[in-house]
Amino acid sequence: MAAAAQLLRGAARAARAPPALARRALGSAPLPGVPAARGGPRWALAGALGGLGLGLGLWRRRAAMAAGEEEEEEEEERLRRRFMAPPVSGLRELRRRRRELRSRMELLIMETQAEVCRALAAVDPGAAFAVDTWERKEGGGGISCVLQDGDVFEKAGVNVSVVFGQLSEEAARQMRSRGKALKASADGKLPFCAMGVSSVIHPKNPHVPTMHFNYRYFEIEEADGTKQWWFGGGTDLTPTYLNEEDAVHFHKTLKEACDKHDPKLYPKYKKWCDDYFFIKHRGERRGIGGIFFDDVDSPSKEEVFQFVQSCAKAIVPCYIPIVKKHCHDAFTPEEKQWQQLRRGRYVEFNLVYDRGTKFGLLTPGSRIESILMSLPLTARWEYMHTPPESSREAEILEVLRNPKDWVH
Amino acid sequence: MAAAAQLLRGAARAARAPPALARRALGSAPLPGVPAARGGPRWALAGALGGLGLGLGLWRRRAAMAAGEEEEEEEEERLRRRFMAPPVSGLRELRRRRRELRSRMELLIMETQAEVCRALAAVDPGAAFAVDTWERKEGGGGISCVLQDGDVFEKAGVNVSVVFGQLSEEAARQMRSRGKALKASADGKLPFCAMGVSSVIHPKNPHVPTMHFNYRYFEIEEADGTKQWWFGGGTDLTPTYLNEEDAVHFHKTLKEACDKHDPKLYPKYKKWCDDYFFIKHRGERRGIGGIFFDDVDSPSKEEVFQFVQSCAKAIVPCYIPIVKKHCHDAFTPEEKQWQQLRRGRYVEFNLVYDRGTKFGLLTPGSRIESILMSLPLTARWEYMHTPPESSREAEILEVLRNPKDWVH
Repeated sequence: MAAAAQLLRGAARAARAPPALARRALGSAPLPGVPAARGGPRWALAGALGGLGLGLGLWRRRAAMAAGEEEEEEEEERLRRRFMAPPVSGLRELRRRRRELRSRMELLIMETQAEVCRALAAVDPGAAFAVDTWERKEGGGGISCVLQDGDVFEKAGVNVSVVFGQLSEEAARQMRSRGKALKASADGKLPFCAMGVSSVIHPKNPHVPTMHFNYRYFEIEEADGTKQWWFGGGTDLTPTYLNEEDAVHFHKTLKEACDKHDPKLYPKYKKWCDDYFFIKHRGERRGIGGIFFDDVDSPSKEEVFQFVQSCAKAIVPCYIPIVKKHCHDAFTPEEKQWQQLRRGRYVEFNLVYDRGTKFGLLTPGSRIESILMSLPLTARWEYMHTPPESSREAEILEVLRNPKDWVH
Repeated sequence: MAAAAQLLRGAARAARAPPALARRALGSAPLPGVPAARGGPRWALAGALGGLGLGLGLWRRRAAMAAGEEEEEEEEERLRRRFMAPPVSGLRELRRRRRELRSRMELLIMETQAEVCRALAAVDPGAAFAVDTWERKEGGGGISCVLQDGDVFEKAGVNVSVVFGQLSEEAARQMRSRGKALKASADGKLPFCAMGVSSVIHPKNPHVPTMHFNYRYFEIEEADGTKQWWFGGGTDLTPTYLNEEDAVHFHKTLKEACDKHDPKLYPKYKKWCDDYFFIKHRGERRGIGGIFFDDVDSPSKEEVFQFVQSCAKAIVPCYIPIVKKHCHDAFTPEEKQWQQLRRGRYVEFNLVYDRGTKFGLLTPGSRIESILMSLPLTARWEYMHTPPESSREAEILEVLRNPKDWVH
């Protein structure tokens, strides 16, 4: 699989070199710094297209209108231009099974990937996304968009993956230990489908926080044909220095997204986030939190999907204003060094505790480069580093040790 | 415990400031860069003292000679000057039970720590070791010697720990899963004693390899009073660039240490090392190996101890000549960057796979700063970094993927 990914990556690179060629072929100018994705000019991003959500229900509406084949093809063409690369399942296939939730979820994660990449490229004129598509031998594949060493971002990755096949015994064991009752067929087989979008954004300036999000959907077919399904996800912020205004903005935006669905969600998922991103051996959280949830399968598939869609739409408004506000802030070498030490803690959390990372590293056939794109470009570990009392470094540590409520 | 360590660390620092004071009080000049350890001038290192092994059998020989109290105190004074800090068990107590293997092992690890620190300080005029002694609430403690940001070494730590008490259920479970049959008493108690010296040396120059060693001894008392014991350890090298001459020198020196005891040991422990330091998700070894062994409890306690002593004596001769040979080598920024990427892999191995690190991080009451001193000062992760074919970077990768036999 690694070789296939490499090959496809080569194709993506080829499509971008020289970039002018891809742009010329486009007919409409792409956003600065956002290169054309693989598959030639047809797959290049067109910056002029509108916001998130447009593609999600369109086919359904079109179907209701009994639109002709031509209109459907037009819509396909619009999505093709919007996305970073062709969806893993293919647009035709997604159209064929457009009423199924997994098709709508695949469109949502593709849409989210494109929207976030576009927003990041818009604030970083020095940025260039490498777009790699990869296939999984056992079923499915993914699209990794990674920006490295831009003007604003040190490293930013936005990945989509859609994998399916038979659940490995190890994965089934882990799920059962989390309380899932999974009835395998006589031959022990459990067909599954898992998809998600995940991202970590590490900026250069220590006054711009790191942001992470991940939204995923899981489906398992049991022996008797019944399907178990659940959603998981979250968005969280890891600042190097505390800025209360930013913390409030970030949490408030997420709370608003949650409140549209149920006022109980934000407090519950905010606490879950603080509990999950805990670096136990340090007694610190990784950052100032946000929201986190897993195994959510009620009240209904449709309602949870609508909630996940609201969360996905909140990513850009909760983060990009903070990036714009601070990306030109002056900083000292000492502040940069503190950022590097905090990056070290980020690495510790991701490699020691993060369930997704651990699961990925131990699963044969995973795409390691996509899993570990979450690690920062650079990190630092000093023996016995302790910031002076009442310093700005001590201030953030205090919040990481004792999480605060940012909105009520 | 962290607070106690901090307090003692404060004491160690105080003993070193101003350094001239400690040196003046010494009467004999310490090695440059090796500060006095905690406990005031009596505990300062005296560089003029001889090589390793002197203290180990002395008390026994003295006892056989029916030496007087005065001579024993003189010997104590000599050891006090040699070590980096007072042994965890106290010199009096070690003298009282001098025939017991755990006393001899504690002297060996103290001796090894001092010898390695002295050798490192001798090649790095810019180096200063911080010496921290710490106590473990549940029993025992340790001495951490860490050098940071010297002229030759980026970060070098040499730790001793001697811990005892009742084995935690988690630890007992892990040991049983490794095949140990442990008979606990009716109340489930298993008194244990574990001690070891461990070290990771990260040099600045990318042409000087990173070196790691660890030698440890474990004792468990079962319900019927019988004692189970075993030794573990190893020494291994992680170069950024391959230098065959260095690889041969390193392995040859270790082989000679092993061959003195049994010609079967080196091949067996060389393979064990290649297997153990395997970064599974990368398909690479961490470095070019060395020796590694665990759970060794035959042919006899005395014979294994003698073997471990030979290995400990081989540390300085297998590594220091390589440091001296390359520490003034010229290097390019690209070479430094490749070193940083390899440091990232070092972090991946230590946080994801290393048994000792994982066990330490998950054990309440461990001293995290001593466990994680193994991490480099700085590290780097680039997405999809692949060195060009036939480059020196590709050359070392090839050896990490397919380990070689360096001596026959």
